[in-house]
Amino acid sequence: MLDVVLLGTSGTVPLPRRWLTSCFLRINGKGILIDCGEGTQIALNSHKISFKSINTILLTHYHADHISGLPGLLLTMAKSDRTEPIAIYGPKGLEEILDGVMKIARYVPFQILYKEYLNDIEEIDLDEMKIKAFKVQHSVPCFGYQMNIARGRKFNPDKAKELNIPIQYWHHLQKGETVEYEGNIFHPEDVLLEERKGLKFVYVSDTRPVPIIKEMSEEANLLIAEGMYGDVAKLENAKKNKHMMMQEAANIAKEANVKELWFTHYSPSLVDPNEYKEEIQEIFSNAIISIDGQSKTLNFEDKEVKDV
Amino acid sequence: MLDVVLLGTSGTVPLPRRWLTSCFLRINGKGILIDCGEGTQIALNSHKISFKSINTILLTHYHADHISGLPGLLLTMAKSDRTEPIAIYGPKGLEEILDGVMKIARYVPFQILYKEYLNDIEEIDLDEMKIKAFKVQHSVPCFGYQMNIARGRKFNPDKAKELNIPIQYWHHLQKGETVEYEGNIFHPEDVLLEERKGLKFVYVSDTRPVPIIKEMSEEANLLIAEGMYGDVAKLENAKKNKHMMMQEAANIAKEANVKELWFTHYSPSLVDPNEYKEEIQEIFSNAIISIDGQSKTLNFEDKEVKDV
Repeated sequence: MLDVVLLGTSGTVPLPRRWLTSCFLRINGKGILIDCGEGTQIALNSHKISFKSINTILLTHYHADHISGLPGLLLTMAKSDRTEPIAIYGPKGLEEILDGVMKIARYVPFQILYKEYLNDIEEIDLDEMKIKAFKVQHSVPCFGYQMNIARGRKFNPDKAKELNIPIQYWHHLQKGETVEYEGNIFHPEDVLLEERKGLKFVYVSDTRPVPIIKEMSEEANLLIAEGMYGDVAKLENAKKNKHMMMQEAANIAKEANVKELWFTHYSPSLVDPNEYKEEIQEIFSNAIISIDGQSKTLNFEDKEVKDV
Repeated sequence: MLDVVLLGTSGTVPLPRRWLTSCFLRINGKGILIDCGEGTQIALNSHKISFKSINTILLTHYHADHISGLPGLLLTMAKSDRTEPIAIYGPKGLEEILDGVMKIARYVPFQILYKEYLNDIEEIDLDEMKIKAFKVQHSVPCFGYQMNIARGRKFNPDKAKELNIPIQYWHHLQKGETVEYEGNIFHPEDVLLEERKGLKFVYVSDTRPVPIIKEMSEEANLLIAEGMYGDVAKLENAKKNKHMMMQEAANIAKEANVKELWFTHYSPSLVDPNEYKEEIQEIFSNAIISIDGQSKTLNFEDKEVKDV
């Protein structure tokens, strides 16, 4: 299961009641932060999210509203005597950004590991989660993220008994290992049922609605996408500055057949995104006009889904 | 007159209901910002303070809680099409800090002028306000600020009439210029009354209670000073990390005979500074346990003082 907390929904400028766009994910107690604007650490704090749990930071791009909170976050982590390293991923240019971050943060008593993306699609393996970073289309290099959590195949005990496999070998087979017993070789496929659908989560902000987004979002459990404007009169503006309209995001969600769509990165000019709720839900009925702190725990399909 | 808005009172870490220590001053429509931590731009915004008005930023020192909001503030200024330059002052090392800030902010379409302090006391002349930056004692080079607003001497029209000075020359004399009329030379001192007391405002944060603070604060209308801790059990901590106790600040205020003392830079461990109100006011009765947004307009002595 994957916890998702949309820490903020503001694009460009942090507002008194709207934090900058940033998202926290938790899987098996490990925290992943997507972007870190000015104030993101306060949003984390207000949701009582442990800074210690965050081992990975994924950056979409290097406009300040997505990275300006890094010096403060790293320092707050430093003050809690963190010693574990933190891994930061992002487009090319990350080394220079971190150089700037460290000139402000100064002393950070733990290692900062980093990796710059060299290709348009890059894979990150976080054990229980396989991440694809994919290039989208903004005014500077910008990436979206697809998170995949695989689900193990179900074990068939009846089949195992039928094959006379002793019970102490079952968990090896379940883990995908081949076992030998009294001269017989047993393969996982002998006792595992069909593949089961995992979880897919997709996050894109600061982009035009390019085809890769739909491709990456196919059948996703949740898509969080930029909804910079709701007023169609702003379309030219969106095109010029390489942002996405709420309507465009809703169309992608519909075409990709995602389960649910949340918006983020609202323009400061979009005072009440709810104004467009009806229009958006006519395009895609499972579009949520999300707010700061929107949270959900995504579970595998036949398990309960809990909204917070 | 001088408007003072204490934008935040938190030391070290920004909290959900306490912004990082920062102060805004306004004189004749011109804004001056002291320090700019993460979130300071949101605090400015929530007080409806025009970012455009800010022409001067004074930094006390380069711990991130005092400077991490600079990239975001400069970018928000950039987005409002600012073209006027901004002047930033601070201790030695400012060039490197601004280099880091610009790596995060990237494109800022106006000039950033800066000056590093080379001496323990430096003077800054902002026309209507003379500022003294003075070195205090923190774990890194750190400066406090004394602001002086001089008050013009009052013009004596009876004396001017007595001397037969034509009325069109009066404002020249009032401005301190010497005038000649029909062979007679008139000097300002011929028609100006005695010197009048101006306004003095002092700001110090992140320091031990060194003697220069009292010296600079003599008879100040308002002193804003660090009150990191209220619990005397924390004194060793304050000494070690070069911070000031509320009690120490109150003693300085008393000895310097300031009119009013406000506290700032409360430790996150100081959940309710009001716990110490009684004890502090026994030391100095005009100590205000200030909160975020504490505001006041300082006026010359015989003018009305407005609290907000």
